[in-house]
Amino acid sequence: MSLEGRSLVTMDDLSNEEIEGVFSLADEMSESMTGQSGVCQGKIMASLFFEPSTRTRLSFEAAMLRLGGRVITAVDISATSLAKGESIADMARVVGSYADIIVIRHPWEGAAKVVADYAGVPVINAGDGGHEHPTQTLLDLYTIRKERGTIKGLKIALWGDLKYGRTLHSLACALARFGASILFRPAPGLEMPEHVVRKLTMDYGGELRKCEAVDQTGKGGVFSLDAIYVTPSTPHQLAMMPDISIQVELEKGVDAIYVTRFQKERHAQANGGDDIKKAYPVVDKKLLKEKTFKQTLVMHPLPRIDELAHELDADPRSMYFKQAARGVPVRMALISLLLGARKVDIPEVKEPISRRKAGYPVYDRGFGIRCQNRSCVSVNEEKYIKAEFRIASRQPLTLMCVYCEHEIFPKYVASSEWHEGTLESKRYHSADSHWGRKIRLENLIVFDSESEARSRGFKPGKNIHG
Amino acid sequence: MSLEGRSLVTMDDLSNEEIEGVFSLADEMSESMTGQSGVCQGKIMASLFFEPSTRTRLSFEAAMLRLGGRVITAVDISATSLAKGESIADMARVVGSYADIIVIRHPWEGAAKVVADYAGVPVINAGDGGHEHPTQTLLDLYTIRKERGTIKGLKIALWGDLKYGRTLHSLACALARFGASILFRPAPGLEMPEHVVRKLTMDYGGELRKCEAVDQTGKGGVFSLDAIYVTPSTPHQLAMMPDISIQVELEKGVDAIYVTRFQKERHAQANGGDDIKKAYPVVDKKLLKEKTFKQTLVMHPLPRIDELAHELDADPRSMYFKQAARGVPVRMALISLLLGARKVDIPEVKEPISRRKAGYPVYDRGFGIRCQNRSCVSVNEEKYIKAEFRIASRQPLTLMCVYCEHEIFPKYVASSEWHEGTLESKRYHSADSHWGRKIRLENLIVFDSESEARSRGFKPGKNIHG
Amino acid sequence: MSLEGRSLVTMDDLSNEEIEGVFSLADEMSESMTGQSGVCQGKIMASLFFEPSTRTRLSFEAAMLRLGGRVITAVDISATSLAKGESIADMARVVGSYADIIVIRHPWEGAAKVVADYAGVPVINAGDGGHEHPTQTLLDLYTIRKERGTIKGLKIALWGDLKYGRTLHSLACALARFGASILFRPAPGLEMPEHVVRKLTMDYGGELRKCEAVDQTGKGGVFSLDAIYVTPSTPHQLAMMPDISIQVELEKGVDAIYVTRFQKERHAQANGGDDIKKAYPVVDKKLLKEKTFKQTLVMHPLPRIDELAHELDADPRSMYFKQAARGVPVRMALISLLLGARKVDIPEVKEPISRRKAGYPVYDRGFGIRCQNRSCVSVNEEKYIKAEFRIASRQPLTLMCVYCEHEIFPKYVASSEWHEGTLESKRYHSADSHWGRKIRLENLIVFDSESEARSRGFKPGKNIHG
Repeated sequence: MSLEGRSLVTMDDLSNEEIEGVFSLADEMSESMTGQSGVCQGKIMASLFFEPSTRTRLSFEAAMLRLGGRVITAVDISATSLAKGESIADMARVVGSYADIIVIRHPWEGAAKVVADYAGVPVINAGDGGHEHPTQTLLDLYTIRKERGTIKGLKIALWGDLKYGRTLHSLACALARFGASILFRPAPGLEMPEHVVRKLTMDYGGELRKCEAVDQTGKGGVFSLDAIYVTPSTPHQLAMMPDISIQVELEKGVDAIYVTRFQKERHAQANGGDDIKKAYPVVDKKLLKEKTFKQTLVMHPLPRIDELAHELDADPRSMYFKQAARGVPVRMALISLLLGARKVDIPEVKEPISRRKAGYPVYDRGFGIRCQNRSCVSVNEEKYIKAEFRIASRQPLTLMCVYCEHEIFPKYVASSEWHEGTLESKRYHSADSHWGRKIRLENLIVFDSESEARSRGFKPGKNIHG
Repeated sequence: MSLEGRSLVTMDDLSNEEIEGVFSLADEMSESMTGQSGVCQGKIMASLFFEPSTRTRLSFEAAMLRLGGRVITAVDISATSLAKGESIADMARVVGSYADIIVIRHPWEGAAKVVADYAGVPVINAGDGGHEHPTQTLLDLYTIRKERGTIKGLKIALWGDLKYGRTLHSLACALARFGASILFRPAPGLEMPEHVVRKLTMDYGGELRKCEAVDQTGKGGVFSLDAIYVTPSTPHQLAMMPDISIQVELEKGVDAIYVTRFQKERHAQANGGDDIKKAYPVVDKKLLKEKTFKQTLVMHPLPRIDELAHELDADPRSMYFKQAARGVPVRMALISLLLGARKVDIPEVKEPISRRKAGYPVYDRGFGIRCQNRSCVSVNEEKYIKAEFRIASRQPLTLMCVYCEHEIFPKYVASSEWHEGTLESKRYHSADSHWGRKIRLENLIVFDSESEARSRGFKPGKNIHG
Repeated sequence: MSLEGRSLVTMDDLSNEEIEGVFSLADEMSESMTGQSGVCQGKIMASLFFEPSTRTRLSFEAAMLRLGGRVITAVDISATSLAKGESIADMARVVGSYADIIVIRHPWEGAAKVVADYAGVPVINAGDGGHEHPTQTLLDLYTIRKERGTIKGLKIALWGDLKYGRTLHSLACALARFGASILFRPAPGLEMPEHVVRKLTMDYGGELRKCEAVDQTGKGGVFSLDAIYVTPSTPHQLAMMPDISIQVELEKGVDAIYVTRFQKERHAQANGGDDIKKAYPVVDKKLLKEKTFKQTLVMHPLPRIDELAHELDADPRSMYFKQAARGVPVRMALISLLLGARKVDIPEVKEPISRRKAGYPVYDRGFGIRCQNRSCVSVNEEKYIKAEFRIASRQPLTLMCVYCEHEIFPKYVASSEWHEGTLESKRYHSADSHWGRKIRLENLIVFDSESEARSRGFKPGKNIHG
């Protein structure tokens, strides 16, 4: 297996088999961390952090240095040429001419894709806003696999802030891809967002099962849960009695709980911040005494605050420091593969999900709609980035920005075939009318608003009461 | 040719032949960028950026790492010991004892010279305020020479902000030295400053020719220009009919246009900022369709904003990303030469201009005048830096600060010979009187103001009506 | 001698013999600075600066690079995960899994000890608030020893701000350990603090002698001094006539003056700032002409401001730039020893003072008192750090925080033996009553305040009039 010249912007850029390849190389490298110093000799990694993240940056840099490569670093970027109005694309092209590989963290969602599009060298996304942070997901998966031997069939509980935790959304999707069952244990008001749940079921073939929490207080010794997501491998007869099957499963214990911190900064303005903090589920010695958690790995992407008690640090089930430590060999494996400095023998390599997604029909007319996500790179750098969407679904009509992967639901549709008829046929219709399904994809025009449609010379169709 | 132990503070520190030597080594190194990792093994470069400039810093650091050297970096300097009141000289001495070569960017003009004076190791100026940024000029020249095979006789148009563009002033002088013709195409109000024009004619032997713009709108298909600077190689008969000769030349096409960005931050206070922005000449596909620009290299020091259209990026005439990329081999060549890690065979090496300039008479009495440039290092670090000036001209009496190279025009003169006569002869005179030319240079005393002269015990001469 | 796996948090972590070992390796390395690039090949140093200190950081990084090792750097830490509420301990554990050795500067006193406790790799304290900066002390000592061949018996004058100069406090203790005599020459109001003087006499066996300043103006050609500290090697008959003996000694000259800068920032609020600045003793050519200073080394940790005249820079007695330069080989020696990459042959190695101090009785009940130093790490990270004190003295009862080494004087005592008697015996007493001496150390309970004692269920003893 060769990943030479490839970039890692989202987890979808790697197939399951390729991920396994990264892991098997990480295994090999972690056996002799000091023996890899010839692998990337003479290569330069540019480490560009437009947002501070010391831990992630140091881990990447340590990885490159252990491989014998060298590093140029910029953590002071906001104050520099970018502030003078330079585009991300220009920066990518220039730095791509200095370095052999780029690691980028940026607050705008989709920024890493733009860098990958322009740099001319492999790019690793080290976090692009709320979108993705794929190497964190890789090291999370790697830790589970290393401790349990596999990911398939495991029961993993996601814990705490399921709403804003980028790391968690990525991990959920990755666990689904590898056939694990996922349990949700959100803090009140911080439930897993609809669009992630939709992605789990739509893109990764999962099956959603809900059940009433058996015991909201948790006193009964049973995991109190609001929802459970199960992979398709669950036998159907169990699926028909979801509550019972879940309980049966849970009695056998949870394989890992993945805790996330309470992101205070997200709640600064809200008056509910303190309330949420009080109700935030804490993982401590007492909790881990429950039978369900007897063999449970305790994971956390760090930094932690109060949601994970210091008293657990010496507990053999605690994995969070091991997770962090394993980031280095995982990143070593990844960097050396993308640079083509190493290859891995893997029996059969399937194509990554992103390539499959690239087969989706595309909407790239450059008008009608734009991405609604204010943090999307395509919105912030519209000077040279042409908005582009994948048509993810027709019912409801759902477009997904190729940069930040946010969903957009256009309200109106029209057909580009009007010019073959009379001008009278140049009309727009409600997206949820039968026209929304009828217009052929290659002819589809979408609009955010009636004014947008009118400005393009379209008139309201019969079902529009403008 | 050996440059071992030398510093590069201004372009004048290198003769034309030495610059050619740097370029021929850059050629050699760019052929095998990964094959140079033994050149500076064991050497340390200190990269000191008192002003952020990610692009320049990363380029220098990548260059040193490609040479097998190592880098210590400080971009956080303003917040540290310097803020505690430390002098640049002390900092230079200390860092010079840690590293083998120093790269410095500093907002004060002349700061790099101070570092070079005290560090005890070679110093490269990576930008000292509005003064110089010689490696940018080197890579600009290198790109032109690489694309055209020579610089001599080329026609290069300078485009946009000719007033504040430090890069442009340096480049203009360097082009003149190598015998290129320079055309000015300023944005309105951003014309090339008088002192640069003077430098071009005085120091680099150029000849200035002005002509009316043939067509201010540019519609006529001819380059609309306000002024043209021609090297002495122009035949005299053409020079006598400047307008015609220029048009004849332009019809053959321009070899390169060097575009600079609109420096918004310079116009923050001025109400004219928006007006200038509107009138700023944009280089785009349309412009490049003109016959004059058929073969024109499009250059830009980056970052660009709106003055250079993204649509040109794929155009083979666009050089700006190549320029940036070539900064690495040029800097590799320079670093390895200054460190004495490489030598170059060059038939005949002349002495650099700065050494010739060092032959100018010097005014270093330490009183009478001081540099008028508030950003000059000699003004900001007067505690230990003694003001020093080269007497560049007697008519008008012109002194040039040896640090920032700003011109000063003292108003009054006196002679140090007074003490040989009676006290009555201790008088000061107007600098533009015959005394200004008569007093021998070794006796010359200059004064900024009458009060300064009086405070030194001088009385007004006959032509002074104080 | 092997220091493999050890940390350097305070100077007490090294015995005199071990310090000599570091110096002899530094001697060896400074003879061939470029010949050490194989010593730490493949090793990574993490350079974590929670406070900016460019000079110290660059010196450490240059040292590691000269040893052939590599460096990951974080100077941007305040803005990152730590700001999200992460503990120093977590940070230490994570970075300790990336790097082979950690260099840390942090504003909290005792922070380096916490990092050393948790990192799992050797840690070097590069300054923890006002507590210690041991490598600065090492390079100061090294310079004296290199110039004079020994430290024992020398007369070293400490000059300027003796109150706030952390560097100076450390150096004073180290000089005492090596048997030098120390003279104080404070700026007015900036005298050496009581607790440092106490440490010098209590911990390092020094003997304090005071004398009237012979000549406050300094005009008499004699060192004007307020106090002198002498090591026990002074013959007793001289010690009986302190003033005379001191003058006799001074007439033979001072071996070194160690100047510190006026720390303007400490006096920002005080109106006395300007007054102190005026009265601050300046070391200049005039002073050094005095007979006492004929052979005196002039030392300064840098940065200097006005207290040390630039005119001295070329004087052969000036050591300050040499001091800075020697920081590199001293740190090279230290790093390679802690990493176990080098060993040194030393005839007899005694155990470090910190191990001897570890033999002190400890108060670690976790209640009753807490460290009074607001900058102490144990106060700022009390979530997981249990307060711990060494009982340094019983009369007056003195506890010393094991983190920041500040002294605490508890007001009340009680005995844990009360439970063996009746409840009536559960009483607290004044610490300076006979109970303060009578209660056995293993039973000792101490209290900050009566309310603290009462809250633990103790009642006032007979000598308490609450």
